[in-house]
Amino acid sequence: MNLYEKHKALIERAQQAISERIFYAAYPEHPKAYGDDAPKAGEEEYKNFLNTNFIGLLQDDAKEFAGEEVSPFTMNALGIKYPVYDSAEVIEKSKVAFKSWKKIAPQERAGALVDTLEEIKKHFFAIAHATMHTTGQSYMMSFQASGPHSADRALEPIALGLAELTRFPENIIWEKPMGKFSVKLEKTYSPVAKGIGLVIGCSTFPVWNTLPGVYANLIAGNTVIIKPHPKAVLPIAIAVAAMQKSLKENGYDPSVVQLACDTSEKLITKKFTESPDIALIDYTGSTAFGDYVESIPNKTVFTEKAGVNSVILDSVNDLDAVMQNLAFSVSLYSGQMCTAPQNFFIPSSGVKGKDKNYSYEEVVTKLKESILGITTNPKMGAGVFGSVQNDLTLQRAQNANAIGASVVLETTAVKNEEFNSARATSPVLLEVQSDAHHIFERELFGPIAIAIKTKDTAESVKLAKEMARKHGALTCAAYTTDTATEQMIAEEMQQTFTPVTFNLTGPIWVNQHAAFSDFHVTGGNPAGNASFTNPEFVTRRFVWVGNRKMMA
Amino acid sequence: MNLYEKHKALIERAQQAISERIFYAAYPEHPKAYGDDAPKAGEEEYKNFLNTNFIGLLQDDAKEFAGEEVSPFTMNALGIKYPVYDSAEVIEKSKVAFKSWKKIAPQERAGALVDTLEEIKKHFFAIAHATMHTTGQSYMMSFQASGPHSADRALEPIALGLAELTRFPENIIWEKPMGKFSVKLEKTYSPVAKGIGLVIGCSTFPVWNTLPGVYANLIAGNTVIIKPHPKAVLPIAIAVAAMQKSLKENGYDPSVVQLACDTSEKLITKKFTESPDIALIDYTGSTAFGDYVESIPNKTVFTEKAGVNSVILDSVNDLDAVMQNLAFSVSLYSGQMCTAPQNFFIPSSGVKGKDKNYSYEEVVTKLKESILGITTNPKMGAGVFGSVQNDLTLQRAQNANAIGASVVLETTAVKNEEFNSARATSPVLLEVQSDAHHIFERELFGPIAIAIKTKDTAESVKLAKEMARKHGALTCAAYTTDTATEQMIAEEMQQTFTPVTFNLTGPIWVNQHAAFSDFHVTGGNPAGNASFTNPEFVTRRFVWVGNRKMMA
Repeated sequence: MNLYEKHKALIERAQQAISERIFYAAYPEHPKAYGDDAPKAGEEEYKNFLNTNFIGLLQDDAKEFAGEEVSPFTMNALGIKYPVYDSAEVIEKSKVAFKSWKKIAPQERAGALVDTLEEIKKHFFAIAHATMHTTGQSYMMSFQASGPHSADRALEPIALGLAELTRFPENIIWEKPMGKFSVKLEKTYSPVAKGIGLVIGCSTFPVWNTLPGVYANLIAGNTVIIKPHPKAVLPIAIAVAAMQKSLKENGYDPSVVQLACDTSEKLITKKFTESPDIALIDYTGSTAFGDYVESIPNKTVFTEKAGVNSVILDSVNDLDAVMQNLAFSVSLYSGQMCTAPQNFFIPSSGVKGKDKNYSYEEVVTKLKESILGITTNPKMGAGVFGSVQNDLTLQRAQNANAIGASVVLETTAVKNEEFNSARATSPVLLEVQSDAHHIFERELFGPIAIAIKTKDTAESVKLAKEMARKHGALTCAAYTTDTATEQMIAEEMQQTFTPVTFNLTGPIWVNQHAAFSDFHVTGGNPAGNASFTNPEFVTRRFVWVGNRKMMA
Repeated sequence: MNLYEKHKALIERAQQAISERIFYAAYPEHPKAYGDDAPKAGEEEYKNFLNTNFIGLLQDDAKEFAGEEVSPFTMNALGIKYPVYDSAEVIEKSKVAFKSWKKIAPQERAGALVDTLEEIKKHFFAIAHATMHTTGQSYMMSFQASGPHSADRALEPIALGLAELTRFPENIIWEKPMGKFSVKLEKTYSPVAKGIGLVIGCSTFPVWNTLPGVYANLIAGNTVIIKPHPKAVLPIAIAVAAMQKSLKENGYDPSVVQLACDTSEKLITKKFTESPDIALIDYTGSTAFGDYVESIPNKTVFTEKAGVNSVILDSVNDLDAVMQNLAFSVSLYSGQMCTAPQNFFIPSSGVKGKDKNYSYEEVVTKLKESILGITTNPKMGAGVFGSVQNDLTLQRAQNANAIGASVVLETTAVKNEEFNSARATSPVLLEVQSDAHHIFERELFGPIAIAIKTKDTAESVKLAKEMARKHGALTCAAYTTDTATEQMIAEEMQQTFTPVTFNLTGPIWVNQHAAFSDFHVTGGNPAGNASFTNPEFVTRRFVWVGNRKMMA
């Protein structure tokens, strides 16, 4: 049985899910689904990486070994050193791998790629610990985001890509009637891969934000060089090692995907971005660098940059349930998700409830109390916040009282029972008037929420829309029980291509974008030009070339 | 019956043709199919436009009327003046039209757009004469290229766009099992139009190169401003007037598509390209301006720029048939097609024939004789060449002896029986060694062909590939009877994303790209980043935005 036949059912199921967009998870998000021994074995696997050279990659000729990861939970260096290669050599190897990889039939590539995911799956728990101790995500989030959710997000472009790559016939007879005779041409259509793709990782979601671009490139026949963030290498290194192992075992050149590490002191990203041999770039990170990447001519570029996500509060059925939900969204991984809400627009007249009107002050107080409820709940707190990935983000929260807004709730150190030294802090809640653009009109990355007192919901929407248009937005949460207002918010925010989630309560949060169902980033506002996984995310990675041949 | 139902069969047939890529023409290319009276009536319609103000547009408030078209056949000014509008006002009107147009369901938009094509169809013959007397194309080419072929190329993005716009469900129920209960969200998916699209026309194919971008924008819900080349306005003006009439009659805002003329003395293109209100730009023309358009940040840009098309001669069955075919390709519209071949790579050892080997000299002589055969044949000559659109192109041909190559065949004035003053000239044939990069390594737009003497076919392919990689290519013609050589040429040229046509003889030429079957431009080399009509040509014009709503 070939690799495509082996995974055909899964691929077709994924294609169906993409079309129907209903709930689907190819890789279960519950750790229990992976067997009783898996968590412990994964933890062991992770521990064995500590204080060693990472030798799992099937890439030789390292110039040196270097590493600088520090666990945001233990504040200790992981002590892992990764091979550092000459960038030109990495590119040369990718060129060689491209020659064979691009020629493989799309079906076979799809099968081979699903096989790499199955190999990664064996390391979900090691990757979870690696993610935890590089990003600061809690254990459960680390497991889900870097494990099953990433694998689902990788399966998406494989399935969608295969559909696009086989969309047109491989060859046809074209017969044009010319009156008494006809002209006959044999025509062939080939989806031609563009070349080498560079995928630049970020420090907060080193796997989830990396795999979609990696697999979208690979299914299209491109090869990939992954440049991880030097502070978050291990999770993706384990994934790449697994991919290379699977590729090699199946008879493919493992250099189809390579890891190209650098160090903070000697960054090599621009050696790749500016190389004429790099045809495609996927980037997740700051707006400044993202804008630079987008400006490089003659590259196919996909970016996810900063955004300012808004919450619009108009009317609710149950304010407690709403505020608990929003407080959780702010607290989850200390606001270090690109989808975390920041600006809470609240009318000065307050928020209409089912039986009463909640004053502006009541709403802010309720939000504050809900955040405090998480902070002070020993069963939530540290577990929800995780740790802060780096000192800059921590300092931003700690110095929030200097931003110029009223401080409703200061950050406080958070006790993490398991990790006493964790870089953990609780969310800050600030408060400003609606004209304080200088304060809320930028991304304050990390656990910082701002209550903004507006004239009315119309002004709230106007400001949220303006933020999205000028600074980008990945998502927007809105609460209204009024149909006309809901319609108005949807229409207005749609003009800035911002997805809106209405009236969320309970155990589901605006931060979450589900594979197979939710598009992540839209490409329509400054938050990035990528959208995984819409058709463009795969079709822009190859070129349709049609040849013709005269028939006798 | 609504407009979608009215045209549903046609749209579905077009969708099927796009998928299957077999021969299909929704609008017949034979003038006879349009009735006996149509040609004469169309000529009358054209003549009535001469020496008047063009008042057919449903756009008011012209600042002034201006026009500068000169017929390359009569060398007389057409005397038609077009309304010149304030660019800011045109944009304002487009903004207003966008508000309603974007809200119309894709199916209804598709129906309305096909209806505009049916209205344009009534003017195919007037457009033919208008094309002839602005571009210099022969009557038959003018009819086919600006009439049925343009309409087919417009129907393509309507049909493909509709499929893409309805690819995902409008709404679904997403139910995520959470153990003892489940979370339910209602999700909606909207293809959101990007805004106002600018389409910049060229002087040689003012309709064929304009309509694909226009209709791709319109089907996606965008509005369009067409900036025609000031020397070739009438053909597209007639088309826009017909579109506006149809739109208005069907109850839509005719400002959905507007014509924004300027004059050579006061060009306004950059007022549009640099306006933040313009979201999309389609451009056909010079590489320099195309590169500028591509460099404008935050626009969705589609370009077709210059290219250098190659002919690779290795081995043939019938040299006469090959050379007659190629001579025709060079002669057709005096090489003013973007797909016209320029560089003829011929091995110094000659070309293998069925029974004998043709020396390099014999091949060049045969090409020269075949061109002369067209030039001196009174039934071909002027009818094939048409006229030269402008003096620069004419001078380039006339001064070809100063380029530095050996002149095999000089250009000669061509007698056009119908139009004594026609700016008509015959093709030039030059000859150089394969190291004369300074001569053949650029587009020599117009009736100039260069025979390049190479070491062997391998060098021919190497040079053709290099030209395509560095300067772009829209097409490549190759002649070989050897399967391995054919494979090699296909593989090598594919690396520069250049379509190759093998062994064409008879009444079909490499210059022709058929709607529904051939992609035009690939987007893979410097000849342009557009490809009509591949899926990207429509999907990049809108954004998928998904909203979510909590269910009880």
